Amino acid sequence: MTLVRPTLKLGHEAGLLLVRAAVGKATAMGVPQVIAVVDDGCNLLTLLRMDGSRLLSIDIVTNKAMTAASTGLPTGDLPPASEVKLGLASGGRMTNLKGGLPIVVDGQVIGGIGVGSGTGDQDREVAQAAIDALLAALA
Amino acid sequence: MTLVRPTLKLGHEAGLLLVRAAVGKATAMGVPQVIAVVDDGCNLLTLLRMDGSRLLSIDIVTNKAMTAASTGLPTGDLPPASEVKLGLASGGRMTNLKGGLPIVVDGQVIGGIGVGSGTGDQDREVAQAAIDALLAALA
Amino acid sequence: MTLVRPTLKLGHEAGLLLVRAAVGKATAMGVPQVIAVVDDGCNLLTLLRMDGSRLLSIDIVTNKAMTAASTGLPTGDLPPASEVKLGLASGGRMTNLKGGLPIVVDGQVIGGIGVGSGTGDQDREVAQAAIDALLAALA
Amino acid sequence: MTLVRPTLKLGHEAGLLLVRAAVGKATAMGVPQVIAVVDDGCNLLTLLRMDGSRLLSIDIVTNKAMTAASTGLPTGDLPPASEVKLGLASGGRMTNLKGGLPIVVDGQVIGGIGVGSGTGDQDREVAQAAIDALLAALA
Repeated sequence: MTLVRPTLKLGHEAGLLLVRAAVGKATAMGVPQVIAVVDDGCNLLTLLRMDGSRLLSIDIVTNKAMTAASTGLPTGDLPPASEVKLGLASGGRMTNLKGGLPIVVDGQVIGGIGVGSGTGDQDREVAQAAIDALLAALA
Repeated sequence: MTLVRPTLKLGHEAGLLLVRAAVGKATAMGVPQVIAVVDDGCNLLTLLRMDGSRLLSIDIVTNKAMTAASTGLPTGDLPPASEVKLGLASGGRMTNLKGGLPIVVDGQVIGGIGVGSGTGDQDREVAQAAIDALLAALA
Repeated sequence: MTLVRPTLKLGHEAGLLLVRAAVGKATAMGVPQVIAVVDDGCNLLTLLRMDGSRLLSIDIVTNKAMTAASTGLPTGDLPPASEVKLGLASGGRMTNLKGGLPIVVDGQVIGGIGVGSGTGDQDREVAQAAIDALLAALA
Repeated sequence: MTLVRPTLKLGHEAGLLLVRAAVGKATAMGVPQVIAVVDDGCNLLTLLRMDGSRLLSIDIVTNKAMTAASTGLPTGDLPPASEVKLGLASGGRMTNLKGGLPIVVDGQVIGGIGVGSGTGDQDREVAQAAIDALLAALA
């Protein structure tokens, strides 16, 4: 019987690193973005809204980050027949918009990042750049 | 004129039995699940989130259980043309995601169980195993 | 720079153990209770509403558990001058009602338990009995 | 007739600077904090939750920042007779907990910062250190 188990916790320095890397990539692409990072508990760790990005993306990217942290999968790959039902039943939390990626370290899902204000592909590209920067720093 | 009527009430021991049976089935299947049980008032009786299951399933399975208790039917069988309208108009409560089953005793709907984190078919299979265990204990 | 750090995660077997111990104590006292257990992310792990307890306690005990997990302290000890302000500013999440206790293992706060439907002192007594049972099982 | 007027907008670089300065001060004090920065529209610009701070402070500090940006005054100085009424009528947004400070540049209120997880005085001290760092960078 496993009462408690060891795990890894995403720290705020990692949250800042992810946000900074995302801002760097988004700036290079010329696409201002809103970026949210959540930990394994789907709780906000860091958030940054870039100048020129979309205000209403604040909730959207938080939900992208939460979805990726909860499923351990990139957002955007659910079957279309399920996405609206999952969105409704989760109060909007579970989203199938591209731009959410899980943060996986040592095989454990320890959080998620959500990016939004560009196209879905741009959002995912910025999120991936942030993840790459974190994994490089951990290597 | 029927002012008040006798009814059956689902007790917390039944709620625990359902959760334990669901955990047993989900463990055997290797699919960690979140399980919620509600009574005839659509109020939460027991809830358990298994290690490795999805955080965002907490609200989803509660809504599955409530939908099944409210309709007396398994979730997932609504006509697709209605499911979004019913979801929107009920604030997300009424869901057509598979994995919710009514709890029927002596011909009365006395509650519902909702299971989620797997595929819809896996969720329904775990919910059915829990119902079967309750009916066996009542027989 | 600490990017990720090792920590402990409360498992669902611990959540069940806490609920069972609380039910045992509440039954012995003759005071039906609602019991909620959350992990370090303030997310529900297990919940049980005993026969004869108060329906509206469901949200209350969840908030007690979240407050204890968030602060690492028993609920009920805030200065009265702050309690209403903290309750309002947290959307009701932070509560100063007695009956919430942090779950502390190896010096880490890894969750919280909230109990309610009795007097504040009864609620705290049941919560403490559950914590004691968990610590005994871990010893 | 003034139909539109020039104003100053707080940028995300300022939001990052404020968060970094707050983290530096909180680290020096040994008091982990949650920090939120909002612009003149009361919309989140940056947020950071330090390791060891309180999860439930996320909403609280956002509300402190919004209150300070909205009133142009430090939080905590409302007459006690009004604070609960204002909290209730604003859905919890307007708070009189210490730790919120307006961001004032060239005599204009262009945002607010909210800090929380310590005592009210510690929260205000960290917020002030962040404001001081911003004003020094602008000088």
